[in-house]
Formats: sequence, C-alpha cells, structure tokens
Amino acid sequence: MSRWQPDARGRLERAAMELYRERGFEQATVAEIAKRAGLTERTFFRYYADKREVLFWGAGELQDFMVGVLASAPDSATPIEAVAAAIQGAAARIAQRPIEYARQRRFIIAANAELQERELIKLASLAAALADTLRLRGVKEPAASLAAEAGIAVFKIAFEAWTSETSQHDFPELIRESFDELRAVTTGT
Amino acid sequence: MSRWQPDARGRLERAAMELYRERGFEQATVAEIAKRAGLTERTFFRYYADKREVLFWGAGELQDFMVGVLASAPDSATPIEAVAAAIQGAAARIAQRPIEYARQRRFIIAANAELQERELIKLASLAAALADTLRLRGVKEPAASLAAEAGIAVFKIAFEAWTSETSQHDFPELIRESFDELRAVTTGT
Repeated sequence: MSRWQPDARGRLERAAMELYRERGFEQATVAEIAKRAGLTERTFFRYYADKREVLFWGAGELQDFMVGVLASAPDSATPIEAVAAAIQGAAARIAQRPIEYARQRRFIIAANAELQERELIKLASLAAALADTLRLRGVKEPAASLAAEAGIAVFKIAFEAWTSETSQHDFPELIRESFDELRAVTTGT
Repeated sequence: MSRWQPDARGRLERAAMELYRERGFEQATVAEIAKRAGLTERTFFRYYADKREVLFWGAGELQDFMVGVLASAPDSATPIEAVAAAIQGAAARIAQRPIEYARQRRFIIAANAELQERELIKLASLAAALADTLRLRGVKEPAASLAAEAGIAVFKIAFEAWTSETSQHDFPELIRESFDELRAVTTGT
C-alpha cells in the first residue's frame, strides 16, 4: 500500500468538521477524525498539530498575505484605503472556498467558548499586525491603530453578514458596503 | 475580635496586585494575597470568586452602566453620538481611580496570555451589548454593530494612550480626540 494519500489534508478537514458539527468540538477525537477520513492518526498529525488547528491553520498565512497587501499599497493610499485593500484581498481569498465551509466553521466556533477565544485572539493579532505595518508606512498613532481596528471591525461584521442564512451578496461586495457604512456611521449621518 | 474588616475588598485588591506584579499572576496564590492583606482566605473568597476576579470584578457593572447611558441618550443622538456618550461615561468612571491602578492592571494583563484572552472577551461582550442596545433604539445592521465596534476600538486605543508612560491628557479628553481621529481616518483624510 502506497503512503501517498490523495488530498489527505482536505479529507481530514471534512471529516473533522462533520464530527465537530455532529458531536461538538469537545467530544470529537483525533482517532475518530482519522477513521472517518479513512486515514491514520499519524497522518492526521502530519497535517495538524491538534484538533483545534483544523479550524485555524490558514490564519497565519492569511495574516501574512494581508500584511503584504497593506505594505505594498501605493504611497498615495490613505491609511484606511490601504487597510481596505488588505481586507478586500482577504475576503476574495476566503470567498474562493464554498460559503458552506465558512458557515460550518462559524457554527462550530460559536458553539465553543475556547474556540471563540481563539478567534478573538487571532483577530486581535491581525489588528496589531496591520497597525504595525501602517506605522512602518509612516502613519502616526492613534491613526494607525484606529484604521487597523476599524478595518477588523468591518471584516468581522461583513463576515457575519456574508455567512448569515439570508445573505445574497458576495463577501468582497459586503466589505465595500461595510466600509461605506462605517464612514457614514462615524460621521454621524 | 470583630469580623468587621474595614476596606477588606480594597486591601485584598492592593495585596493581589502587588503580588501579581512581583511574582507574576500565575505564581501568586490566594493564601499569599490574604496573608499580605492581613486577612484570611475565607475573607478573600467572600469578595472574589478567584484570583482572576480581582482584576475583572468591575467589568459587569461597567457594562451595565454603559448600556444604561446608551439607552438613555436623547432620540436625536446619532448611533455614534450615543455610543460616544457611553464610552465617555465609562472613561470618567475609570479615571476616578488613580491612573497608577490602571497602569498596573494593564501591565499585569499584558504579562499573561490567559488574562489577555479574558480582557478580549470582556471587550467583545461589551461591543455586543452596545450593538444590542442600539438595535433596541431602532438602529439597523450593520450600522449598530459598526458603531459599537468602532466605539470599543476608540475605548481600547485611548486607554492605551492614557496609561502609556508619556501620557499628558486625561482619559475623557483622549476619548474625544480619538473619536475625532476615527472620523478623520474613516473618511480617509
């Protein structure tokens, strides 16, 4: 038998998410995930450090991507325009996967306090990384942190709208609308 | 000997914060905190559920206060004006205590991942409560969530500025300036 397992990462992820939904994240075990995927536990640990990482493994890469987009925005871009470009880019990447994946992930995280904490930490870390990058572009405080935090707020709220049951818009479009709405809100109109 | 212990809560808090700074939050024990305060462990548990609660016991009350201010803002207030009134009110309350307390608390929390998570959860819960209150005032989504999240971003960033070593402004003043800056940032000027 060959050790090559086509799409092992994807099979493990699908099996894990099915089990997290059926039995809850707490109850599901790595042994069950591997079994359902038709793979071994050893193979699981070749792709994921633990069962939590199945839900978060893309976060570091996404952060690097967003920092890259922000850093390479034209010099003429205002801080919020540069942040918006990074958030748009992230939304376009996330929307390459089926919306059903994003919905399931949201549902699993909402059902577990530890996963919610993890998600909040990832978002806080993302905001800090974007603020750092703005400061490297010469943006002063508090403008750098405010632009980064405002961008993350838009990202979070547009993601919730996109993954809601009644959503009829695509994710990048919802991001654009939310930035417009943020501008309207902060100017108090 | 009387069971009445004048200012037991405050004495326990001061002892706890000294120990958290000296030895780290992880290492400090309730037995040591009580001993340093000249009180018993039993007295400690009359005021605080655990050693973490020493740092967070005021959060629930502060949230209720902010929700109250927001709910009673005049009908003519825009969502961001109503949120700003709640944040201003909170800043004025927080600033009633010596700035040294806020600085120490920030330092202790920054040194411990578990406490940082707790702080992020409290802020997320506060944003959700403010958004709920705005919806009760008839504000639609995503405006309600955006105004609430933007307000919390201002709160967080102004708090950091206020407690920084070089700060020369009072907290409510920094909140006002940060809201002005947020408006400038989101309009891209």
